[in-house]
Amino acid sequence: MEHHVKDPNLVKQGRQRIEWAEIEMPVLRSIRERLTRERPLAGLRIAACLHVTTETAALMRTLVAGGAQLRLCASNPLSTQDDVAAALVEEQTAVFAVKGEDRNTYYRHINQALDIKPHLTMDDGADLVSTIHSTRQELLKEVIAGTEETTTGVIRLRAMARDGALKYPMVAVNDAKTKHLFDNRYGTGQSTIDGLLRATNLLLAGKTLVICGYGSCGRGLASRARGMGAQVIVTEVSPLHALEAVMEGYQVLPMLEAAR
Amino acid sequence: MEHHVKDPNLVKQGRQRIEWAEIEMPVLRSIRERLTRERPLAGLRIAACLHVTTETAALMRTLVAGGAQLRLCASNPLSTQDDVAAALVEEQTAVFAVKGEDRNTYYRHINQALDIKPHLTMDDGADLVSTIHSTRQELLKEVIAGTEETTTGVIRLRAMARDGALKYPMVAVNDAKTKHLFDNRYGTGQSTIDGLLRATNLLLAGKTLVICGYGSCGRGLASRARGMGAQVIVTEVSPLHALEAVMEGYQVLPMLEAAR
Amino acid sequence: MEHHVKDPNLVKQGRQRIEWAEIEMPVLRSIRERLTRERPLAGLRIAACLHVTTETAALMRTLVAGGAQLRLCASNPLSTQDDVAAALVEEQTAVFAVKGEDRNTYYRHINQALDIKPHLTMDDGADLVSTIHSTRQELLKEVIAGTEETTTGVIRLRAMARDGALKYPMVAVNDAKTKHLFDNRYGTGQSTIDGLLRATNLLLAGKTLVICGYGSCGRGLASRARGMGAQVIVTEVSPLHALEAVMEGYQVLPMLEAAR
Amino acid sequence: MEHHVKDPNLVKQGRQRIEWAEIEMPVLRSIRERLTRERPLAGLRIAACLHVTTETAALMRTLVAGGAQLRLCASNPLSTQDDVAAALVEEQTAVFAVKGEDRNTYYRHINQALDIKPHLTMDDGADLVSTIHSTRQELLKEVIAGTEETTTGVIRLRAMARDGALKYPMVAVNDAKTKHLFDNRYGTGQSTIDGLLRATNLLLAGKTLVICGYGSCGRGLASRARGMGAQVIVTEVSPLHALEAVMEGYQVLPMLEAAR
Repeated sequence: MEHHVKDPNLVKQGRQRIEWAEIEMPVLRSIRERLTRERPLAGLRIAACLHVTTETAALMRTLVAGGAQLRLCASNPLSTQDDVAAALVEEQTAVFAVKGEDRNTYYRHINQALDIKPHLTMDDGADLVSTIHSTRQELLKEVIAGTEETTTGVIRLRAMARDGALKYPMVAVNDAKTKHLFDNRYGTGQSTIDGLLRATNLLLAGKTLVICGYGSCGRGLASRARGMGAQVIVTEVSPLHALEAVMEGYQVLPMLEAAR
Repeated sequence: MEHHVKDPNLVKQGRQRIEWAEIEMPVLRSIRERLTRERPLAGLRIAACLHVTTETAALMRTLVAGGAQLRLCASNPLSTQDDVAAALVEEQTAVFAVKGEDRNTYYRHINQALDIKPHLTMDDGADLVSTIHSTRQELLKEVIAGTEETTTGVIRLRAMARDGALKYPMVAVNDAKTKHLFDNRYGTGQSTIDGLLRATNLLLAGKTLVICGYGSCGRGLASRARGMGAQVIVTEVSPLHALEAVMEGYQVLPMLEAAR
Repeated sequence: MEHHVKDPNLVKQGRQRIEWAEIEMPVLRSIRERLTRERPLAGLRIAACLHVTTETAALMRTLVAGGAQLRLCASNPLSTQDDVAAALVEEQTAVFAVKGEDRNTYYRHINQALDIKPHLTMDDGADLVSTIHSTRQELLKEVIAGTEETTTGVIRLRAMARDGALKYPMVAVNDAKTKHLFDNRYGTGQSTIDGLLRATNLLLAGKTLVICGYGSCGRGLASRARGMGAQVIVTEVSPLHALEAVMEGYQVLPMLEAAR
Repeated sequence: MEHHVKDPNLVKQGRQRIEWAEIEMPVLRSIRERLTRERPLAGLRIAACLHVTTETAALMRTLVAGGAQLRLCASNPLSTQDDVAAALVEEQTAVFAVKGEDRNTYYRHINQALDIKPHLTMDDGADLVSTIHSTRQELLKEVIAGTEETTTGVIRLRAMARDGALKYPMVAVNDAKTKHLFDNRYGTGQSTIDGLLRATNLLLAGKTLVICGYGSCGRGLASRARGMGAQVIVTEVSPLHALEAVMEGYQVLPMLEAAR
């Protein structure tokens, strides 16, 4: 099976980490049991462009268990976990992703993923769908549908749809309440704190944090930052969201004043 | 039994309210059981000058159960609950307290309480102890000891003790951890919120509250105010307490800036 | 002007309390300025059945300032503030409301409010709209539209609309984001705490509170109860809302277990 | 200058990280200015056994600026930052520490640090002081005093002092309010969350965390864990601390029930 990962020796570590992640994914595990029995994806080819992490890996294994043929490339060259990439190759997912890959490699990997001639595409930032529509239009005739993960990708696709430019139907995963109410609020909330701690090694208690925007991500982060003892200032263009931030006890300021 | 309360017809209501309060006082209830059996206070005369409320009433009933002879006056003319006063009279506590009593009545009641010739005094603001030391010194020879409830009273008594002016030993109830860690922090914290709501009828969410001082009371109130959605600013003269407030995520400002 | 209030002597106190409330209603105040200039409601007759409180009074004064002719009755016999009722009568709002009025008086007042032959109705619980549709159908021909404040009222009206029984258009005020995101969450959240404190005189810190339902009101209350130091258990039938409650760190239990 | 670090090439990275840390240490910086002027430590030899991290490095640089001659070894073989160790050697601190060093190396390094024949010892776990008292007693005659950082070390030293076994005076740094009120509560609180995130990669929101002990560290962690959306259960042997945990709204359980 064609693929491109950094180091096949990382398989064992990757597999252990995927299995650890799956412990916390009971819903996906029960879906996998059903897919394993029913094999509804048999004969389907899927190209996926997602963060190549343990969580995505659990999803890939589930699709393979359902009978799908899979190619996976990275939606972000920096988030790829090389051990997970290696482990997936062992489990019939053709991965094209190396952490820190340069721009050319990144786009070559996208095209290699598309070489599967997908029936379905899975995007996190609309890279597959836009590559197909721009330079790989020959693939359009076989594509049945696609999924898109993020707010940004969905906005891009909605614009395409409005212009009549979108040639196949897309499922906006981000619109699912279980996505934006949880992933954005709690997931991004915690991840951003985590990232801040790893990057700065600072004590958050007593610090002032300015959060730009009080949407799902912003309010998740605001809540976590306060929970870590920081004093939170919110900036926001929507009057309604600004008012909510005030009512939660945050200081709300124009960005210029907040930055002072 | 000599006494002075507003309206003896309030007995039933007062008793019901005392019993409601006692439900939440399991420790006092178990002490009462022991005192009832052992009667260690038999023959002791006690003068108490405390808030005449349901909670004090539960304490008075306990002392009576232990065999004490009791007179109770109010440590604050505004907090007296006339129904509770009436109910106590029915249960062998000689109460001298009427809600809203004027200054003269207030001091007459203190003296009437002292007319019991106490072995023990119970103060919440040092009124009994200071009256005894100034105008009722003939009582000193029978007093064994006293208790004092508040920070302010304790400060006053410590000054007297330093000057050699304090003629009998006092227990500083306020120094008990179960007093200042709980009553001051949680009790005063909630009561102040309660008072604010009743007095102003304002929505606290989104309001800015300035709290002067971050001692036990101040931090209790800060925590409750934030819990009600207010944005909290703390002013504080102690650098250590100010730092703690900062670390809890509060804005700390000089009072002049806070008041702006 | 025909009216029925408890005591005309309460005018001054009522007016002071209305003015205090208006300090916190800057949006309504700026709307009133515009209505005073433009008088867009001149010639319109309005019947309102709302809580007769300071906040409603501020709204009534605003409508009068816009030129409307007004009759107001109570949507709840227990929430009527008699001083506010008296003050409103002085300012050209015909009030029919006495705190604690019995069932017959309550319905007589509704009918007296409707005697104005309204062009517009304002409901908080659908009493005017349902009375018009059942026993006062002669009024229907002049009614242009109405507003309804609460979730319950809106549900009732939606059912009527579905059956084709609703004879004039209604604005569901509750659907406004500034209503259910704020009034329900922050308003009801605080009011319920306030009510609990006044009714029980309990210290909330350390208590366990079971909150049935994690909608706008429920999550507002949960947040405030936790903010007062209570341990919060949520019960909820919607899996999505239940999951949100879990993610906020509340214990979520079936009602039977929660009640234990 | 004798020393033992992993890789001298890490100097530049180490120095950058120390400087980053110093930005957040304004008090230490102002002390350093004074020490640089006054050189009160000139002629003093100091042996330090501390976590070899950026924060300790800032302290070492300050002591060197004050004129001290310094040897530093690691109080924990796992926390050593090799780049910081390398950078310190360039700045006249003789470091003996390699991340992950084995038991023998660890103790050899302690002895090499003591070879400076210290006037002062700085401990974080009492390793220098106990080595001096057991196998290096010849050093005792020159030692003036020492400092000890942690609760555990202080407990050990107090036991020695009680038995008359402690041969030189120690400063219990942990007793400083700015240590245990801040480092333990906010520092350990955040660090434990940080460690949990790095080790487990789990979403804390909605998880149940059992915290054993509600002292300074435990209450810091409890507050942070709740701030991250976890449901917190506390176990505690002290009734007073247990009561405080209850009043903060945590569930308090015996450890056996908590572990279920």
